[in-house]
Amino acid sequence: MSPEVVKLQEKFDLFSEHWSPKIVGELNGQHVKLAKLSGEFVWHSHAHEDELFLVTRGTLLMRLRDQNGQVEEKRVGVGEFIIVPRGVEHQPVTETDEVWVVLFEPAGTLNTGDAGGERTVQEPQRL
Amino acid sequence: MSPEVVKLQEKFDLFSEHWSPKIVGELNGQHVKLAKLSGEFVWHSHAHEDELFLVTRGTLLMRLRDQNGQVEEKRVGVGEFIIVPRGVEHQPVTETDEVWVVLFEPAGTLNTGDAGGERTVQEPQRL
Repeated sequence: MSPEVVKLQEKFDLFSEHWSPKIVGELNGQHVKLAKLSGEFVWHSHAHEDELFLVTRGTLLMRLRDQNGQVEEKRVGVGEFIIVPRGVEHQPVTETDEVWVVLFEPAGTLNTGDAGGERTVQEPQRL
Repeated sequence: MSPEVVKLQEKFDLFSEHWSPKIVGELNGQHVKLAKLSGEFVWHSHAHEDELFLVTRGTLLMRLRDQNGQVEEKRVGVGEFIIVPRGVEHQPVTETDEVWVVLFEPAGTLNTGDAGGERTVQEPQRL
């Protein structure tokens, strides 16, 4: 099968819901996902997965809590990315109305990590 | 150590040479690399690594050769990506003067794959 050229804008146009990552690529056991974010997400961490957030629209604030409970906030704008290492508690928050991100993380990574709850997407849709 | 926010434009501004990927991030055994491309690269494949090319400037033509020797050409523009599966012979060629790409691939992936030769970068620089 011939590899597909994935146009990010076309894929983003296919959905509107927030905090529900969609799979748009798979390689080396990793998924490429797209997500639209708005507001505050839950605090969570991933025990075994590092997670990359590349922003393509808006401004993301990534809150990170260290082992002493200190919270630090990182601002991630368009054309910028942050890698949240495994085990680090984080809370994505949008500074702008809506934020679009490309995620790169191991297949099977849950959006809510160890926090669980109603915002968990067990089986992300493939676009 | 607090995660760094990586600004793609700032990192691209740090180098000018072509076909020499730079490491700008690492997660889950994968590297995020930046490369500037111009002209034709060598035909090659990677036996064990899938490789993602996300274009941020210019237009990339990815030539792919199937098992029957048929060559197909995929055009990848800004905001688009292609995943070249392991084992698939490919030749990146630039349609515009210069093309900038973000690469996702396993740590240790060589730019020239099985082809080797003088354009091989054994130890990509970290930016």
